[in-house]
Parts: sequence; C-alpha cells; structure tokens
Amino acid sequence: MPIDPVQLTADLVRCPSVTPEEGGALVLLEGLLRGAGFECHRIDRNGVPNLFARWGARGAAKTFGFNGHTDVVPVGDEAAWTHPPFGAEISDGFLWGRGATDMKSGVAAFTAAAIDFVTETPPDGAVILTITGDEEGAGRDGTLALLDWMEANGEAMSHCLVGEPTCPERMGEMMKIGRRGSITLYLEAQGVQGHAAYPHRAKNPLHALVSLLGQMTAQPLDAGTAHFDASTLQIVTIDCGNPATNVIPAKARATVNIRFNDLHSGASLSDWAKGLIAGVETETGVTFTLRADISGESFLTPPGMLVDLVADAVEAETGLRPELSTSGGTSDARFVKNHCPVVEFGLVGQTMHSVDERVAVDQIGPLKAIYTRVLQAYFA
Amino acid sequence: MPIDPVQLTADLVRCPSVTPEEGGALVLLEGLLRGAGFECHRIDRNGVPNLFARWGARGAAKTFGFNGHTDVVPVGDEAAWTHPPFGAEISDGFLWGRGATDMKSGVAAFTAAAIDFVTETPPDGAVILTITGDEEGAGRDGTLALLDWMEANGEAMSHCLVGEPTCPERMGEMMKIGRRGSITLYLEAQGVQGHAAYPHRAKNPLHALVSLLGQMTAQPLDAGTAHFDASTLQIVTIDCGNPATNVIPAKARATVNIRFNDLHSGASLSDWAKGLIAGVETETGVTFTLRADISGESFLTPPGMLVDLVADAVEAETGLRPELSTSGGTSDARFVKNHCPVVEFGLVGQTMHSVDERVAVDQIGPLKAIYTRVLQAYFA
Ligand SMILES: [Zn+2]
Ligand SMILES: [Zn+2]
Repeated sequence: MPIDPVQLTADLVRCPSVTPEEGGALVLLEGLLRGAGFECHRIDRNGVPNLFARWGARGAAKTFGFNGHTDVVPVGDEAAWTHPPFGAEISDGFLWGRGATDMKSGVAAFTAAAIDFVTETPPDGAVILTITGDEEGAGRDGTLALLDWMEANGEAMSHCLVGEPTCPERMGEMMKIGRRGSITLYLEAQGVQGHAAYPHRAKNPLHALVSLLGQMTAQPLDAGTAHFDASTLQIVTIDCGNPATNVIPAKARATVNIRFNDLHSGASLSDWAKGLIAGVETETGVTFTLRADISGESFLTPPGMLVDLVADAVEAETGLRPELSTSGGTSDARFVKNHCPVVEFGLVGQTMHSVDERVAVDQIGPLKAIYTRVLQAYFA
Repeated sequence: MPIDPVQLTADLVRCPSVTPEEGGALVLLEGLLRGAGFECHRIDRNGVPNLFARWGARGAAKTFGFNGHTDVVPVGDEAAWTHPPFGAEISDGFLWGRGATDMKSGVAAFTAAAIDFVTETPPDGAVILTITGDEEGAGRDGTLALLDWMEANGEAMSHCLVGEPTCPERMGEMMKIGRRGSITLYLEAQGVQGHAAYPHRAKNPLHALVSLLGQMTAQPLDAGTAHFDASTLQIVTIDCGNPATNVIPAKARATVNIRFNDLHSGASLSDWAKGLIAGVETETGVTFTLRADISGESFLTPPGMLVDLVADAVEAETGLRPELSTSGGTSDARFVKNHCPVVEFGLVGQTMHSVDERVAVDQIGPLKAIYTRVLQAYFA
C-alpha cells in the first residue's frame, strides 16, 4: 500500500523537533525506511541528530539522493497561533503547524516517493536519503556531518535533490539551481577620542565608517548574471554606544552582509573591502580591523540532465515550467554541491518561520508525485 | 594691604567644591567681599549656590562686571594624582589641585583686583562680581540664576569680563570675544525590517542614515568668517544594536553635534538638516524623526571699546597682543552676552579637567594685574 504523504507530514509535525531536538522525527523515518529495506545509520555529531538511509548497493553507478531536514525553528509567541503549533490539525484545506512547509511536508513527500518507488519498481542503482536535525541552527554538524561520514565510508550520491520549499506563490513555478554566496564583514574602526569642539585634535571613527559604508553602498555590486540576480549588500548594524554628545568616540563597529553571485567569491569581496578600507585609512588616519566570515560561496548547477529531469517532472505534474532560480537565502545545497550536482525543488514556502505556518494539503500529493517522476526518469 | 591672589587661589582650591557642592568657596569669597564694602547676596536656585556682589551704587552708569565659577569637575582617579587634588600644594613653580586653572585662580585674581581697586582708588561707578557654583554641570541654575535675579532686582552690568582660562600655551596670547554655537541633532531612522537576502522587501534604516550622514559630512559647513573658525560637524554616535547578521533592522539612531559660527543659527541648521532628511526620505522610503537641542547660539562682541580695553591691559602686562578668538567650547559668556557686551580672558588652561591640574604660580599675579589695569582703564 503506498505511503500517504499527508499522513506522514502530520506525523512529523507532531514531533516537537525544534533545533537541535530530534523530537521523534528521525526515529519515525528510520522505522519506515528500515521496513522498506533501506540500510539506515544515525550519524549524530556534537548532539545533532542526523539520519542516513540507502536502498540498493553502496557505490552503485546511479545513486540518486534526496536531502532535507526535520528540525524546525522555535514556535515564537505560541498564543498568537490559531492552531497548536505541534498539533498538525487539518482545516480550511491546510495542515497547520511548525515545520508544515519548512520542511516536513518535503521530507514526507520524498520519503514516501522513495519507499514506494523502490518497492514497486526496484531500480538498477541506489537511492540515498540524507536527513538532518540541524539545518535551521548553526548547521556545522548537520548535512556536513552526513557528507563527512559518507566520504569516510565510501557512500556517494551521483545527483541530489533538496526538498526545501522553492515556490514563491504557485506550486511548480520555481526551482533552484544554485544559490548566491553569503559573506559577513565585521568592521571595527579605531580613531582617536577627543572633544567635539576640537575635531582637529581627534580622529572620528564614525566619519571614517560612514565614508567606507557610503562607498560600499554607493553603487550596486553588479547587475546580475545569466542565472543569478544582482548581488546585494546590506549594512546590518552600526554601533558605537557613546552617550556623550560633546565627545568624539574612539571606536565604532559595523557589520555588513553580502549575498553574492558568480561574479564574486568570498575572497574577492574581502579583497574589495580591504581596498576600500585602505583608501579610507589613508584619507582619515582611522585604522580598521576586518573579520570576514564566509558562510557559503555562490554555486550553480548549470542547466543540463539533472535540471531538465526535475523541470520535466514538475511540468508534467503541475503544467508549469519552473523558473530556474538562484534567489533567496542559503540552504544545505551549499554543502551538497561539493559532493555532487544538486538542485532544489519543493512547494510554496510563504508561511515558513511564521506564526500559523501551514501547508496546502493538496500540494503534498503532487509533490510526492513529482519526486516519484524524478526517480522514474532518472532510472529509466 | 593688597590681597595675595596666590594665597586666595590656594584657599579656594582647598574648598572641595565639586559641582554642585559649595564646599566653602563662596562663603570664603563673600566674607572677603563684605569686608571690603561689597553688598553681597547668595542667589541659590534648585540647590545650586551662587554669589552676587556689588561695590558702588546699584544702577550706576558705568558698572563693570566679572563673571566666574568656583565649582570644579570631579577628581577622577585620585590615586593617579601626584599631589592631593584639594591640597593646593606649591612645588616646582606650580600650585596643584582640582580647579587650580579652571578657574579658582581666575576668580581669585579678579576678586583680589576688584577689592584692591575699589579700596585704593574708589571709582565713579560700580563693580559687580557674579560667581556661580554650577558652570561645569547643567548650568541651568548658575549664571542664569544670577542674571535672572539681577534683572528682577534692577541690577545691571555695563560690560563684563569672564575670567575663564583662554590661553592655549603662553599667558597673554589669546582672549575670547565670542563663541561658536552648539546644536545637537538626535536622529532616528525608521525603516522596515526584513531578511538580508531579500532587501527589496525591506527598507534599511542604516543605508538611509549612512546616506544622510554622508551628505552632512561631505563638505565643510563653511570656511570660517572674519572672527570665527569654520563650523564643525561631528557624528558622535550611531547605534542600532542588531545582533542578527541575516536581518535588516527596523530602526537606527545617530547623534550629530555641530559647533557653528555666525553664518548659522540653531534654527538655520535644523532647517538644513530637515532639508537633507526630506531628500533621503524621498529616495529611500525610510522615515526620520529629528530632535534638535540648541545648547547655545553663536555670539560675538565685535572689536571695539571693551575688546581694546582688555587687549591693551594684556599687552601692557605681558608684552603680547592677544589674538581675538572665538574658538573652543561653550562658557557662561553665552548667557552673559544677552545681558551686556562680554569678553573672556584668563591664563593658560592646559591642565583643566585633567589629573594633576595645576597653575603656574607666576601667572596668577600678572592675571590680577591685568584685571586691575582693565578696571583702571574702564573708570579712567
Ligand atoms: Zn528549510
Ligand atoms: Zn571653567
């Protein structure tokens, strides 16, 4: 009997798996997968629970992978929810609860698709599921831990599909074939304190910072590329904490976050910042320290076999040809791309991370059907 | 017998008159002045002690005024002092202690000069001393209280000399004939919070603030005028307090302090800021609130009788023709100027407000002599 992905979504939503709590979600999935003949391993690291599952032979030439997460962000103001956040109640055509869209419905859909596919039409190859309990948190011991363990144990996926929500409004309208990179620049400007009435005796770090940030924001970093939106730069904070209106402060800090496309890299943007800083230092006498934290480089799985396969499956099921997008924040695809070609497709993500997160019940069946079509075409 | 201004300075330094403590300083002066025939009134307001003293008839056509303060800023790290801060020890040619330069030596010198002058050569007119116990603090109930009381009681000075330190390095090299004004602009930018990866859905108040502050600091406000240095603008703080590098904040604040010359007024600078803000608001969609705090308008006592009188006295005593300056921070001259023409002259102020504040003993006698020459010339 085929697995009902709506029922499985509901069962998963009832597991209170707020990062890094396992909450019963991976245990539930492991039971199902073992029952269907998957070899399963819990790959927990530093308290983060992760599940690896493979059907078929290790090292098979064709090994299709699905990746997803069962952890969810906190509930927030529980009183503001109109349905219990771990209740999985179904009403008004929605299944309500934290993780309903991000991404327990996705995990349920690909797990159901994978089990039914290998049971009904055992393929010549293998299917791997990597499901982590920390995608919403620091992410250092989630999908990365699974990939590390796989490499150490001769496990490999030929291609991978991440089941995160990808559609802005209508099911099927968008898939992701890459992501912009993200770098955070932590700037500290050290000047010379002084009296506001005698600025020639001081060096105001805020003026240097405003000059630097003005240069950084004066022009767009680029106008976008074939598959990427324009890179964006946002000042996320500036802080000084000087309470005295007649005092020029000695020190000030700012943080800048850049989401960048394939025209840049973490290193090239660090160098760009260093160049601007050097100019401001020379001009003002204020000195800067820069710490750059690259949380992900940009990446792209160019249109080709994998992209076509998924796009065809989406179009066959929904009638929409998905836009090939690289927009949005980061996802664990940024880790998987170092392992094998990876794309992302999932349902409409509008309510993710919100109060009253919910999924349209009538999107879950089609999502399973799309994943099934992907498997069928891949192993055809 | 003439009053020794060094001894009087030492006696005043031994009074621990940290704002708003009277510390015995005004009581000491009142005793001396009464003994010399001055009519004295303590004009205390809201816990701030102030002393008014007049020799001669109320309402005399020629009434020369001296203004000063006996309060001092806190000692700070007492362990760092090489001499007790209220000890008034004399060594190495200096008299050491909090207030030694700012401005118990000045008060001692003009008090000694005034008493000896009216005793030895009683003038055809009057001499008024206004001495406050709060110049270093909020200043709302100090010299202002004295001037309010004088107005209510038919007391008036024709001209006034404030005895604050005015010389940067050498005794006699500078007097003050006005001061720049000071205005503080408190800016708050209200944008729309959002995810750093989707800036088109948010409005970043920091970008608007950087744009505004960049415009404010792009060019000098002016190049100075006949008697004034260029106006200066300093950003004294910017604060946002956003800890999340992936979040565009909703709100940010900045404070700007402007020291302005006679090309501007508090109102004209507020209007200028409002104009720039309107442009940034239109461009960014971020809205601003502006609170402007004018702590003093600029003022000038143009070269003329009073200025010449003081400059001549300084030159006769020191051999230096004092530069006519309007530089530096504010002083109580900003209140006195609404009452009568006012200038400032005093000794070298290098150690004011510092640990090991001290005055060169050999400057105190000449300072008294200069004030005496001013009185002699004024009533000649
Ligand atoms: Zn997710
Ligand atoms: Zn002073």
